[in-house]
Amino acid sequence: MKIVVIGASGTLGRAVAAELKTRHQVIEVGATHGDHHVDVTNLPSVERLFHEIGKVDAVVTAIGKTHFGPFHEMTADQFWIGLRDKLMGQVNVVLAAQHHVSDGGSFTLTSGILADEPIRDGVNATTVDLAIEGFVRGAAIELPRGIRINAVSPTVLEESMSAYGPYFRGFEPVTAQRAALVYCRSVEGAQTGRVYRVGY
Amino acid sequence: MKIVVIGASGTLGRAVAAELKTRHQVIEVGATHGDHHVDVTNLPSVERLFHEIGKVDAVVTAIGKTHFGPFHEMTADQFWIGLRDKLMGQVNVVLAAQHHVSDGGSFTLTSGILADEPIRDGVNATTVDLAIEGFVRGAAIELPRGIRINAVSPTVLEESMSAYGPYFRGFEPVTAQRAALVYCRSVEGAQTGRVYRVGY
Repeated sequence: MKIVVIGASGTLGRAVAAELKTRHQVIEVGATHGDHHVDVTNLPSVERLFHEIGKVDAVVTAIGKTHFGPFHEMTADQFWIGLRDKLMGQVNVVLAAQHHVSDGGSFTLTSGILADEPIRDGVNATTVDLAIEGFVRGAAIELPRGIRINAVSPTVLEESMSAYGPYFRGFEPVTAQRAALVYCRSVEGAQTGRVYRVGY
Repeated sequence: MKIVVIGASGTLGRAVAAELKTRHQVIEVGATHGDHHVDVTNLPSVERLFHEIGKVDAVVTAIGKTHFGPFHEMTADQFWIGLRDKLMGQVNVVLAAQHHVSDGGSFTLTSGILADEPIRDGVNATTVDLAIEGFVRGAAIELPRGIRINAVSPTVLEESMSAYGPYFRGFEPVTAQRAALVYCRSVEGAQTGRVYRVGY
């Protein structure tokens, strides 16, 4: 398969690309790194990307900034961060790429454990992660030509614990490599409209 | 209780206000109708509203435009409609009003059946409705002073079937009056972080 991994230079995206490369042709895309560059928050930029790449069999997105901070002092602009980046970034990819994915191809998006397990300072992430799962649920019944769409919802990564550990006390981290396996289950499997939870 | 109902001139909001008025002081707010006016998509407008109204015991939002249309031709701007209006409209209300709600007070937001039951042309609504439920889940554990937050997720209203019927074949509608009862369960009950499903 010809597979595009967007966010391929991140901890998770790198592991997903490495795992898929053992069996497939992988095109690595990032904001500033990789074979191609894209600004996922800008639909025309994503459209240009897929015009350059052409027909693909699968698209994986492992991106997503959200805002962490106390709700009592959160601003609307801070709340917009996750909507603009992690949510609309991935929505833009599906909006643009649906016309370039081959029959029976697939999208695999990234939500996160905070969808199910809210934490202090995490309301933006919980909102965005569930929104992504809603998007997958809604898009799964509309995508044509047997195109599938799923989300992977990983718990916190072992590699991120030095930065995010204090937010995730009592959470058992997984390695990016183990999370990457689950992306393959979506890409190489047959299900659609699914959320694959990893490590919880 | 002193209760603010935002969206009080809509089919649902009118029924909620009528039901609450039998026992409480209700302040009706709308974009252009009611005791006060507000543009919920604009946080400073919502902040002004609550400076005018002062301390309240409960806030109910029954608002929310989303975009209906085929996913294969949806634009990013169309997808933004639901995020800006139904999602951020309600988020803005909670961001602004959290500082004006009395101890043990409550927020009751509105999601919708499409969170659970996706339909053709409804991906924007399914995304937004689940996002709202995520927001409630995240905010419930952060709101201080015993302030509660829930969402009501109604099925299609009987009063809306003439306009939305073709989208909701096979769905059993409920009257706005019956849905309104469930808002009272949230406002006058003791739970938090709940989604109250109505009619499904």
